[in-house]
Amino acid sequence: MAEKHIYAFGGGEAEGGGDDRELLGGKGAGLAEMSRLAIPVPPGFTITTEVCGYYHAHGASYPDGLEAQFAGHLAALGQRLGRGFGDVDKPLLVSCRSGARASMPGMMDTVLNIGLNDEIVAARTAAGADARSLRDSYRRLLTMYGDVVLGVPHAAFESALASARARHGAATDADLSAEALDDLIGQFLQLIADHGTPFPQDPKEQLWGAVGAVFDSWNIQRAKDYRRLNNLPDDMGTAVNVQAMVFGNSGSDCATGVAFTRDPATGERRLYGEYLVNAQGEDVVAGTRTPQPIVPSDGGAGLQEAFPTAFAELKGVCSTLEDHFSDMQDLEFTIEHGQLFMLQTRTGKRTGTAAVRIAVEMEKEGRIDYREGLRRVEPDQLIQMLAPVFDPEQKQAAVEAGRLLAKGLGAGPGAASGRIALTAERATAMAKEGPVLLVREETSPDDIVGMHVAAGILTSRGGMTSHAAVVARGMGKPCIVGAGELEFDEAAGKVMVGERSWSEGDEMSIDGTTGEVIEGALAARPSEVVQVMIEGVGSGSPAVGAFRTVLEWADRERRMGVRANADTPHDAKVARAFGCEGIGLCRTEHMFFEEDRIPWVQRMIMAATDEERAESLDHLLPVQQGDFEAIFEVLDGLPVTVRLLDPPLHEFLPHEADAVERLAKLAGVTAEEVKRKAAQLSELNPMLGHRGCRLGMTEPKIYDMQVEAIVRAACVRKKAGGDPRAEIMIPLVGVEEELSRLRARSQAVLDRVVAEEGVTPEILIGTMIEIPRACLVADRVARHADFFSFGTNDLTQMAFGYSRDDIGRFLPDYVEGGVLPYDPFERLDEEGVGQLVEMAIRKGREEKPGLKIGICGEHGGEPHSITFFDKVGLDYVSCSPYRVPVARLAAARASLGVG
Amino acid sequence: MAEKHIYAFGGGEAEGGGDDRELLGGKGAGLAEMSRLAIPVPPGFTITTEVCGYYHAHGASYPDGLEAQFAGHLAALGQRLGRGFGDVDKPLLVSCRSGARASMPGMMDTVLNIGLNDEIVAARTAAGADARSLRDSYRRLLTMYGDVVLGVPHAAFESALASARARHGAATDADLSAEALDDLIGQFLQLIADHGTPFPQDPKEQLWGAVGAVFDSWNIQRAKDYRRLNNLPDDMGTAVNVQAMVFGNSGSDCATGVAFTRDPATGERRLYGEYLVNAQGEDVVAGTRTPQPIVPSDGGAGLQEAFPTAFAELKGVCSTLEDHFSDMQDLEFTIEHGQLFMLQTRTGKRTGTAAVRIAVEMEKEGRIDYREGLRRVEPDQLIQMLAPVFDPEQKQAAVEAGRLLAKGLGAGPGAASGRIALTAERATAMAKEGPVLLVREETSPDDIVGMHVAAGILTSRGGMTSHAAVVARGMGKPCIVGAGELEFDEAAGKVMVGERSWSEGDEMSIDGTTGEVIEGALAARPSEVVQVMIEGVGSGSPAVGAFRTVLEWADRERRMGVRANADTPHDAKVARAFGCEGIGLCRTEHMFFEEDRIPWVQRMIMAATDEERAESLDHLLPVQQGDFEAIFEVLDGLPVTVRLLDPPLHEFLPHEADAVERLAKLAGVTAEEVKRKAAQLSELNPMLGHRGCRLGMTEPKIYDMQVEAIVRAACVRKKAGGDPRAEIMIPLVGVEEELSRLRARSQAVLDRVVAEEGVTPEILIGTMIEIPRACLVADRVARHADFFSFGTNDLTQMAFGYSRDDIGRFLPDYVEGGVLPYDPFERLDEEGVGQLVEMAIRKGREEKPGLKIGICGEHGGEPHSITFFDKVGLDYVSCSPYRVPVARLAAARASLGVG
Repeated sequence: MAEKHIYAFGGGEAEGGGDDRELLGGKGAGLAEMSRLAIPVPPGFTITTEVCGYYHAHGASYPDGLEAQFAGHLAALGQRLGRGFGDVDKPLLVSCRSGARASMPGMMDTVLNIGLNDEIVAARTAAGADARSLRDSYRRLLTMYGDVVLGVPHAAFESALASARARHGAATDADLSAEALDDLIGQFLQLIADHGTPFPQDPKEQLWGAVGAVFDSWNIQRAKDYRRLNNLPDDMGTAVNVQAMVFGNSGSDCATGVAFTRDPATGERRLYGEYLVNAQGEDVVAGTRTPQPIVPSDGGAGLQEAFPTAFAELKGVCSTLEDHFSDMQDLEFTIEHGQLFMLQTRTGKRTGTAAVRIAVEMEKEGRIDYREGLRRVEPDQLIQMLAPVFDPEQKQAAVEAGRLLAKGLGAGPGAASGRIALTAERATAMAKEGPVLLVREETSPDDIVGMHVAAGILTSRGGMTSHAAVVARGMGKPCIVGAGELEFDEAAGKVMVGERSWSEGDEMSIDGTTGEVIEGALAARPSEVVQVMIEGVGSGSPAVGAFRTVLEWADRERRMGVRANADTPHDAKVARAFGCEGIGLCRTEHMFFEEDRIPWVQRMIMAATDEERAESLDHLLPVQQGDFEAIFEVLDGLPVTVRLLDPPLHEFLPHEADAVERLAKLAGVTAEEVKRKAAQLSELNPMLGHRGCRLGMTEPKIYDMQVEAIVRAACVRKKAGGDPRAEIMIPLVGVEEELSRLRARSQAVLDRVVAEEGVTPEILIGTMIEIPRACLVADRVARHADFFSFGTNDLTQMAFGYSRDDIGRFLPDYVEGGVLPYDPFERLDEEGVGQLVEMAIRKGREEKPGLKIGICGEHGGEPHSITFFDKVGLDYVSCSPYRVPVARLAAARASLGVG
Repeated sequence: MAEKHIYAFGGGEAEGGGDDRELLGGKGAGLAEMSRLAIPVPPGFTITTEVCGYYHAHGASYPDGLEAQFAGHLAALGQRLGRGFGDVDKPLLVSCRSGARASMPGMMDTVLNIGLNDEIVAARTAAGADARSLRDSYRRLLTMYGDVVLGVPHAAFESALASARARHGAATDADLSAEALDDLIGQFLQLIADHGTPFPQDPKEQLWGAVGAVFDSWNIQRAKDYRRLNNLPDDMGTAVNVQAMVFGNSGSDCATGVAFTRDPATGERRLYGEYLVNAQGEDVVAGTRTPQPIVPSDGGAGLQEAFPTAFAELKGVCSTLEDHFSDMQDLEFTIEHGQLFMLQTRTGKRTGTAAVRIAVEMEKEGRIDYREGLRRVEPDQLIQMLAPVFDPEQKQAAVEAGRLLAKGLGAGPGAASGRIALTAERATAMAKEGPVLLVREETSPDDIVGMHVAAGILTSRGGMTSHAAVVARGMGKPCIVGAGELEFDEAAGKVMVGERSWSEGDEMSIDGTTGEVIEGALAARPSEVVQVMIEGVGSGSPAVGAFRTVLEWADRERRMGVRANADTPHDAKVARAFGCEGIGLCRTEHMFFEEDRIPWVQRMIMAATDEERAESLDHLLPVQQGDFEAIFEVLDGLPVTVRLLDPPLHEFLPHEADAVERLAKLAGVTAEEVKRKAAQLSELNPMLGHRGCRLGMTEPKIYDMQVEAIVRAACVRKKAGGDPRAEIMIPLVGVEEELSRLRARSQAVLDRVVAEEGVTPEILIGTMIEIPRACLVADRVARHADFFSFGTNDLTQMAFGYSRDDIGRFLPDYVEGGVLPYDPFERLDEEGVGQLVEMAIRKGREEKPGLKIGICGEHGGEPHSITFFDKVGLDYVSCSPYRVPVARLAAARASLGVG
């Protein structure tokens, strides 16, 4: 007996169910599950994802038995509805839709109304069926089939349709008469035939053509791009759903819509969505018509008024599905002559704010436990709640100055300013030089890469569930859709509002929360979470409370500690407010650059004698000590890892004539000598040069001064009743002797200062592991270290042989072209650099069991990398202060095995 | 019973023997062995090296039982000679000399004539002993004891001695009368007392002081430096030899000397050496008087005339010792009133030429087998035979122009030109900017670091066995000693010949083979080996034959293949003449820089359109193809690994105004545009930039052109009846996808060209392993590679995070200060980089058993590194053409487990 390739659903029962996502895809599993829950679903059947795998592995052919099973299911479907596929009198019409295992909105293609042809349209009209509605369905079939199956450009249909509207004075497609549509159908058939292959009049040929096109569409570029951007595997495949049609376009007692069981932008528990009267589903999602809200926020008439029975039923369905799935659902529905049909249910995409609020409220409602809550919030979603919003006064001023250009739908909250790009290609190119806003009439899956690089997205058409809105929310990007005031002159490369126009490169700002489009760049201000948690302003909305709750859950669950990279008392305060458990990296060179210090640093470098050098260092000592005292005070009771000077000395010397003159005067030398010194210190590859501990080895007095400043500051704090916990970190060690000698020297300074001060603060001495060789000899290095801290930025640079300053000319190509799965400076390269990290941990702890090991590179705040760091046994991650919440959540999810 | 700490020798017997070098040191073992062979050796005893270890481990104290054993041996020694230590009538005088396990000439200190004091000198004079000789011995004791044991500056004694000579009109020290010496002794005693501690009149105190000083001298800086430069361990320790004095300074029937059983410069089998009449040993070695040859080369009177019996006996001793040790010996002897005493035998240091010739001739004589011959020649010694000599015509012209300044003894063969430095410190500093000649009155162990960095060494005093001569030969450096025309004005920092003078930084040349010192720099010409083997001039001396023989032995023994790095047909010819088995690295960028090509390369870079770029590449294709045809022809039947373009494109753009203008004209752009392009391509860290296969990925047409040129050249050679074996090497791979894509692209070009040409040459495609990450993912990379070739230069740069261009400011300090045991760019860092190499081999061969793996970094010609590469299983090393003989020998020694 042949394998089972097809699973039927409908009429309160189904062969599959909600657990069969792998086999039936998300859509198929949802339809099966809804069927079983007795939710009204038009009957149909699902061809499994395994068939897709077979299809691609066997040169676009089907497995044995599929055709027979297919014919059987199709016949049974007709029987159940009293119709026949291809029957002239009672034709069965079906849709054919893709459905991958993971939700991939808009990625795959759909064909509706399959089964119509000239003969059936004529016969049904003759038999008295609604002529307009039949033709509307037929022209849709021709458009979708021509585009998706036969490769006729979609724009050709659109333009013929627009001409027809203009010719017949129709405001919308729904206003076109049956005659006008007949005319259009003739044009469409000709259009398709002219492209090479005529439209198949045989319904079976239509249906098989659509099935093949769905499978083929798995491998089109935009689908691959989506999978790459979302780290989805290429081999999982899509299922195909064949389902009896119901018609939202059969008259004014028909409609089609999309609903969410909670607000996907804010997370508020309320029925949310949009619908279009007398339309088919694609009209809503494609953003070609702006739909009406199901429940208007201004209290106006909504679905309840227009379709009271269907509305009540929809509310019931929402409740059933939330109870059943314990998560917010994204639904598609059609109302046919007043009767509700559900076409899809899936877990709804949501903004970060919504994700946090829904998780916390569902836990309160008893639907999920806190661990499930942690699984439901992606760490990067928290970042959205920390993203700045526009300064309200500045925005107000801009509005008053007439710079408010348009108001659309706030589809993705957050504020973004940038130079505008009118195509995805231009956005990709321009994004290399700064933030870009992608501004389009509407977006399509072809624009996915351009949307990814954009700081924000703005469209003139479409609603809250249009492609642009859905994708932007998924990406966490500010987005405005349906800003109808905008018009486009593609030939001139301009976007216009009335008489005014802007070209690519001009600056605009969008407020994705309010929907306002403003000319020029605007300054941003902190988000509500930041205002409440960092600035202590107010107590915040429910979202802020939910944010705190999620982080409390995270702390309950995580094994790894979370520290912050902070160089100033201000950063340290922010980090502590966000719940860091110490400073993992305090860079001392930033202190050197401050205005009251840099002259003394420069003078030290220019010093001709040991005495002159000592004098400069004597000046710097109390200043650095003051810096450390302030930071130790903020982090009282928590560890603070201070890295000794790292950059090469030439970075501190001036280049501009004025500054050179000033330094020459201060150091008592000529400008020529300053330039000569700078030239002498300059390096061909400064990244691999005379810096870090190499400087400490050849200029030991600098490190002596810094160690003294740290130790004295700790003593001062301790005498003042504080609990300072300094950790001295020696950077760029690659050779055991570097650390053994610098440790000994630092220890000597420490012992001397402690003896002088008469108190003994707790001070550790360790090293940064950032040179590949340090990982290879980590056992030897560990002998002299109280702790290790990975500097994965430099480790990545050296392991790959990439200079971060110079990778612009090939790394973006590598990531876009799939040579590298992701940018290794954003996410730790587990395959390569990860091996070095694991090796260093293993060797270090073999030599010194229980050695404390953390990471302070930028990967310390990146969720995938954090998962890796948890797996390999790091004690803590350290990240930028604003990433601390992300890291807390990511560490908790790592403990749960998610991420 | 206490451990045995002391071993006696003398009188035809000994408690130890020649195999006890570990315990008795080289000198002690040699004395014991000579005793057993009935060679006349003054009796004495040796304190073991273990005592030295105990001494340093226990705060300069001695083990239990040592003093008693010492007293017993001292008493027995006196009894044997009918004398007593401290006895006024028949005083026993002894020497106290160091003797480490490995020979360390001049490193350790010696005190002679111990046991003399005021009372004994007076009593022996009163009893009629030779007054002058007694006082000469006493003043020597005071000098050595004062210097070595009590730390009085040696120069103070020298200057008092020089004043005495002047005051008394004495030409040499031997001409000073007893009265003059009495006077000097008074001055010396005062000098010592003034320094802090008076000279001990108690002979026992003298002896214990000397023993302690020998042990202490193990840890003085110059001893440590020597060990570091020669890679000797610090913990092996020295023995102390206490031996009855015999006196070469007891009158004109006395002498002291140094002999070699074969010529240490040429290897010729003849008695070779020098002696001084009426002198003590230190006079010869210290180079303070120029001694006479034992067998004058001009047939004049030598030792045979002056001391016929002793001479005959010395020849017999030489024969006995060579028969016994089967190696050339370096001897010290003293003639006391006509009777010969041997004071030392050890394996003689020799030049590279001598090492090769002695090994080959001893094998012919049946003393050793060829494997022992291979063990006896250090690979680097071969380099000396390849070192250039001065162009004879230019030298002749310089001599005729009066530039011949002086003629000394050619102590180290070879030619060197450089700027002169008058102190070791200056030499070390100046050597960073180019070749330096160290020019000194005489050298001492304090100068060892300066000698190491110098291109050549020149002294005005001393003989062929002086410190300068011995050390320079060991280092393989050109050296002239005893160039007495030179005078020094240390205050003015000048060296003078007659009225003329030169300052530090002025250029000179020395011919270490002839002893000629010439003003200014001279051009050099190839050595005899190079003339014969490469240029086919003549058939050469016995040394050339021996050179060939050693390499034949090496080929018989070695497992690893040896290839050469060569970019031109000329280099390829040299490499093949030196016996390479293929080209391991042919760099194509050097071809790009040639005058007829660089404009097209630059035009390609400046190209605005694909067509322009293609036009430039079309121009370059036949030129590159011609290069490859020529190289394949030279290497017919042997593999040639061609590396595709590696440097970043900006390296090819001009910087000077003229060249910029020329390129602008050629490329049809403005000079401004050329500069803009150069600026746009420039990189902050070019070493980690857009180069190697990264360029191949983003500019694939360049690699296409190169692959086509290689394949076409191979086809042309094959059609011409040749046997070309091309290997295409893709550089800088760090990511699997780089190689998989570039390999596929190269294969496509290859297939196309092969189809067009109609022949199928053997062509492999592989990669260079030079990025740390490539080692970590070598299993994945190996899937797409026919071979690996390690680029250890870049691998070292990235593993350490060092830029070779910028290491000058800390790496020399690291090596000198012992932070690193050696420069990892000279010798492969086994501890760190070696792990990456081993990992890549293991992973590569796990994925693809039998994968061919070589190395083409500069370490491929360094003997220690070659030993490592043999151990880890590389198939071949590739090095510069002139290093091929070195590599062949080193590979053979690696097979033997030496090196």
